[in-house]
Amino acid sequence: MTTAAIIGGGVIGGGWAARFLLNGWDVRVSDPDPEAERKINEVLANARRSLPGLGNVALPPEGSLSFHGSIKEAVEGAEWIQESVPERLDIKQKVYGELQAHCAPDAIIGSSTSGFKPSELQNGRENPGQIVVAHPFNPVYLMPLIELVTTPANPTGVIDRAKEIITAIGMFPLHLKKEIDAHVADRFLEAVWREALWLVKDGIATTEEIDNAIRYGFGIRWAQMGLFDTYRVAGGEAGMKHFMAQFGPCLSWPWTKLMDVPEFTDELVDLIAGQSDEQSGHIPIREMERIRDDNLVGMMRALGANDWGAGALQNKHDLGREGEAGLVRSVDEIADISQPVLTQSRVVPLDWTDYNGHMTESRYLDAFAQSTDRLMMIIGCDTDYIANGGSYFTAETHIRHIDEVHAGDAIQVKTRVIMGAGKKMHLWHEMYAGDRLLATGEHMLLHVDLKTRRSAPPAAHIETNLVKLAEAHAVLDAPEGLGRAIGAPR
Amino acid sequence: MTTAAIIGGGVIGGGWAARFLLNGWDVRVSDPDPEAERKINEVLANARRSLPGLGNVALPPEGSLSFHGSIKEAVEGAEWIQESVPERLDIKQKVYGELQAHCAPDAIIGSSTSGFKPSELQNGRENPGQIVVAHPFNPVYLMPLIELVTTPANPTGVIDRAKEIITAIGMFPLHLKKEIDAHVADRFLEAVWREALWLVKDGIATTEEIDNAIRYGFGIRWAQMGLFDTYRVAGGEAGMKHFMAQFGPCLSWPWTKLMDVPEFTDELVDLIAGQSDEQSGHIPIREMERIRDDNLVGMMRALGANDWGAGALQNKHDLGREGEAGLVRSVDEIADISQPVLTQSRVVPLDWTDYNGHMTESRYLDAFAQSTDRLMMIIGCDTDYIANGGSYFTAETHIRHIDEVHAGDAIQVKTRVIMGAGKKMHLWHEMYAGDRLLATGEHMLLHVDLKTRRSAPPAAHIETNLVKLAEAHAVLDAPEGLGRAIGAPR
Repeated sequence: MTTAAIIGGGVIGGGWAARFLLNGWDVRVSDPDPEAERKINEVLANARRSLPGLGNVALPPEGSLSFHGSIKEAVEGAEWIQESVPERLDIKQKVYGELQAHCAPDAIIGSSTSGFKPSELQNGRENPGQIVVAHPFNPVYLMPLIELVTTPANPTGVIDRAKEIITAIGMFPLHLKKEIDAHVADRFLEAVWREALWLVKDGIATTEEIDNAIRYGFGIRWAQMGLFDTYRVAGGEAGMKHFMAQFGPCLSWPWTKLMDVPEFTDELVDLIAGQSDEQSGHIPIREMERIRDDNLVGMMRALGANDWGAGALQNKHDLGREGEAGLVRSVDEIADISQPVLTQSRVVPLDWTDYNGHMTESRYLDAFAQSTDRLMMIIGCDTDYIANGGSYFTAETHIRHIDEVHAGDAIQVKTRVIMGAGKKMHLWHEMYAGDRLLATGEHMLLHVDLKTRRSAPPAAHIETNLVKLAEAHAVLDAPEGLGRAIGAPR
Repeated sequence: MTTAAIIGGGVIGGGWAARFLLNGWDVRVSDPDPEAERKINEVLANARRSLPGLGNVALPPEGSLSFHGSIKEAVEGAEWIQESVPERLDIKQKVYGELQAHCAPDAIIGSSTSGFKPSELQNGRENPGQIVVAHPFNPVYLMPLIELVTTPANPTGVIDRAKEIITAIGMFPLHLKKEIDAHVADRFLEAVWREALWLVKDGIATTEEIDNAIRYGFGIRWAQMGLFDTYRVAGGEAGMKHFMAQFGPCLSWPWTKLMDVPEFTDELVDLIAGQSDEQSGHIPIREMERIRDDNLVGMMRALGANDWGAGALQNKHDLGREGEAGLVRSVDEIADISQPVLTQSRVVPLDWTDYNGHMTESRYLDAFAQSTDRLMMIIGCDTDYIANGGSYFTAETHIRHIDEVHAGDAIQVKTRVIMGAGKKMHLWHEMYAGDRLLATGEHMLLHVDLKTRRSAPPAAHIETNLVKLAEAHAVLDAPEGLGRAIGAPR
């Protein structure tokens, strides 16, 4: 068990506390603010909600959290000390004096400063080598980036240990070997902020329009590849040097007329093209394109599940497509009630495939579950009904995989109501690619009261609709495989 | 059926062609480049791979694609004409002359220009009202943003119709009512590009370090909320005005010393705070935080599935956690072979829940499938083995849901080998939250040859390991529910 001291609570200190605690460290907090404990616990609540499930492997048991009246008490036994006090050099200098009077000489002191250079923090200290800048990004409990800025005063051992600890709590140490005001990332944020202020002031765009320009455009691109890799792919086979020759010091005349730009020498072009080759030259451009597209699709679909941003746009587009795709929203809209109901018509998305090169098994159930949702909507168990406290829970599922299907293939699901009386709903889904049967899904659901979480009868109109479908489908031959158990002979 | 003319192929024209074609429009291309057809077909191949599966509803049947030797021929019957010729005003002017000599007077002519203002394109034209800027982002077939820039010469009807068509092909028209060089988004890209050139030139950071600063930091944030909403949330309950008072015209002294910044008057603060309130004031900050975290987790997990960017960092972190979490990678590492094998220890992620407020049914199968993958690895069917052409495909699955579980809850899966001889692998998974049984999964898999996609015997070491586990587990009582069918009495 290891111990971290958090000097200065608030949103940033709280985020650091969460990173350490949820990765098994004991955390000792010192902050004169009487609200510090409340503030840190609020951040912790958010962190506990989101961080432990971020990965696919459980984190260790949480460490212990304690609050201390003095810096002296807080730094006792601490291996890492994170300073997140206000951005004033005189305050920081005072805190560092107190820290170093009491902490272990081999403890690492990281500063969350977004503006000061590490040399400014080390200046005048007896043991400057233990002080580094470790600049995090909000929300600290989820964003992996740490700008680790060091000076020649920091011994290699301290730098290596800092990287190790940052990595151990699930973050990425971006080691900047040359210090500069505001490090790297915030210089970009500053440039964008300044441009945004002009656009709003000049009435070109509102804050909402600017935010949409970002999140529907380059923001999504930058979530997976940065500036240079993005342009590398855009430049295509001709490569980074060609891209730069084409666009030069400004991406296009005359946008930079007011700005100070570096002289665009051959040396600068070679420097950038060479670094870009070293960064990503091992991946062919065609493959970079596919990686980019896989990432964009995956992220937009993740946003779609939250009905937010670019994903919400796509959901709206889907909604407008339903009719033409043959999907209905009520029993009355079904053209021929005697036949299984079309409950899904889609193309297998890129993020539904696995290492075997085909649609992965859990996505068959994802598709069947979406078909069940559609059938629920059709019988009247829609968003409003669910918001009022009634829904169906799946009790049992039996899936048989009959044939493979791949990303980009069109699939359809047709659904039969085997039984629908009282609390029970027994469904039979068949998934097709054209005439090719891919899989069957047999599902037993129970109507529940969402308050008691127990089974309860559905509203009358739902049972009526369900019985109507069940009776219409009862005249069809029983589906092959219905009621089968695994391992039972056909 | 509607028709679009694409004037100028290449990556941008090809992306437009794909957007229209895959949304059911006929597309007529004109480009003097003899390589245009090849280039457009390459973009189309990427688009067909990624776009149709982006949403959850099938797109209409593809329109027809044709290539034409003249602009005259291409624009015949076109309702939308998209110009993506080189960024030289004299070339564009010449093309517009030819376009307008032959196109319908009520067709809309959109320009992909990233730099020119619409008035510069409209200047001197007989019918300026049909010309708008419709600036897309690469890859055009996936990125939703279109900067739609108009002038007073554009009638309301043209603007409305342009928005309607852009929306109909699944994109987002960001209507900029006041024109400016480079519109909005590229002004930000330009500011970041300029700053990046300085950082590389001055040896502060390499292209790779800059890209990492972006994609592990603000890039992911901006994929879901833009600049202003991000700062609104960071500012907390005190609101946007407080945030601005705190940070002022520069995010922190002295980063902007070389730059021209707007005077930071009360009017500007009120303007921005007021717009931000209008944009997102209806969502409480606490809810904004949760939305942000849901989005970040969903996107990072999507990147993790592709082992890329911030998701790849998390995968590496997971790997380092396996041992402490009690997970093993081979039969020899299993402490007590007579007991079910621990094949998963995790926390339910935020993106695994649904409208019923609990873990959604397909994620039970996702978890069981990951446990099957772990068991495959343990018996020797690992990444290398699969790369060499052997694997297991699931034939049948039977899941019983016994109890609910929620995001943030720790879950474990224990796995028994019921039968493992020859090509068959019969598994029984039990999912627990502590001692509480949540679900059982019974799975029949077949070993396959990935080249023939048919069942085939596994390698000897795999069968040996499987038999070893099956024999050890055979002495345990048969699990309750094994071999059961849906609807069968207990």
